[in-house]
Amino acid sequence: MIITAEERDAVYKTIFNRRDVRSNFTDQAIPDEVLTRILTAAHHAPSVGFMQPWDFIVVRSQQIKQKIKNGFELANKQSAEMFNGDKQLQYKKLKLEGILEAPVGICVTCDRSRNGPVVLGRTIKPEMDFYSVVCAIQNIWLAARSENLGLGWVSIIEDSVLKQALDIPDDIHIVAYLCLGYVSNFSAQPELEQKGWLKRSELSSVLHFDKWRKD
Amino acid sequence: MIITAEERDAVYKTIFNRRDVRSNFTDQAIPDEVLTRILTAAHHAPSVGFMQPWDFIVVRSQQIKQKIKNGFELANKQSAEMFNGDKQLQYKKLKLEGILEAPVGICVTCDRSRNGPVVLGRTIKPEMDFYSVVCAIQNIWLAARSENLGLGWVSIIEDSVLKQALDIPDDIHIVAYLCLGYVSNFSAQPELEQKGWLKRSELSSVLHFDKWRKD
Repeated sequence: MIITAEERDAVYKTIFNRRDVRSNFTDQAIPDEVLTRILTAAHHAPSVGFMQPWDFIVVRSQQIKQKIKNGFELANKQSAEMFNGDKQLQYKKLKLEGILEAPVGICVTCDRSRNGPVVLGRTIKPEMDFYSVVCAIQNIWLAARSENLGLGWVSIIEDSVLKQALDIPDDIHIVAYLCLGYVSNFSAQPELEQKGWLKRSELSSVLHFDKWRKD
Repeated sequence: MIITAEERDAVYKTIFNRRDVRSNFTDQAIPDEVLTRILTAAHHAPSVGFMQPWDFIVVRSQQIKQKIKNGFELANKQSAEMFNGDKQLQYKKLKLEGILEAPVGICVTCDRSRNGPVVLGRTIKPEMDFYSVVCAIQNIWLAARSENLGLGWVSIIEDSVLKQALDIPDDIHIVAYLCLGYVSNFSAQPELEQKGWLKRSELSSVLHFDKWRKD
């Protein structure tokens, strides 16, 4: 199956215009067929030894979202205290989640015992199952962007809060909580770049050839 | 920036036709501008707190590839012993890497101290920096597929082998070793599915709504 130059350009356009979205969500509902296409793309991610260790919990209940939001508020207050001076002031002004506004939340998990106990390709590097789940998340992110849907990964929530709110068994690991929805606009730059939190580094500064370059 | 329906379909086509490639590499050289486009796509992955913790070591030296291949052989022998009976026989027949045949290897690493020590979004979930690097790897995978290049993630190598072969500092963590090159063909299905190692599960079996479904 050949990918044409036009199709290639569409993939790059999607990759370069993907954003981590925390604001600008609208309340426009996501059609079921769109959500199904996105989750099918997730399920077609690569996985170590083809173990497909992921599960996706689609969250639409406002009551459950509120429990998750409360967990964020607590964790975010603790997190703010870890920054000093001006950085803490700047941190407190950032909007870091869209849990209640996004029409859909998706909790993504990893079942380390699936298709095991010995998993091809995980024998030497045990973390590979988690990495497979993250590949599925990046598929979700790009599929969502291709549907003109915004997505934000909210990592400032204790796993225990998500497990309790969503009734997730003890032996299942939380990888991500994602907020998904249509947006009023996508910003041209990542928000943290736009607001001066950090700059994008030059590609050349992270490239090496055959050996690690010593600066 | 709107993504059109045609562009969306191109993204899905790329996602569904991406394969974890271990054979069929040809020796056709990868033009520099193609490799640069792919690595630029990697550098535009999402990263926690915009920390951009990744580095990419492009491996073209046949001598260095041989060191890595030797590391694979050792780790693969140990790994085969972990499977029993028929599964071990089946495992030993699989070709699990294309280290020497692929014209380019890419080692992808994580610098946990970059733009730190406190990283926005990593305060509660310390593994987020590794997950950012994996998002960059999935961007590489899809960008490569959109360029009609095959890519395989070889996880059956000890980190210490890659560190030694590529002169990587102690405080830098190995996430992946990737084999990249043009291929004679992409198979219609994942190889492990095709060869009967495991089946693809139904999407419905990994989907839950609002609460974890108890089967």
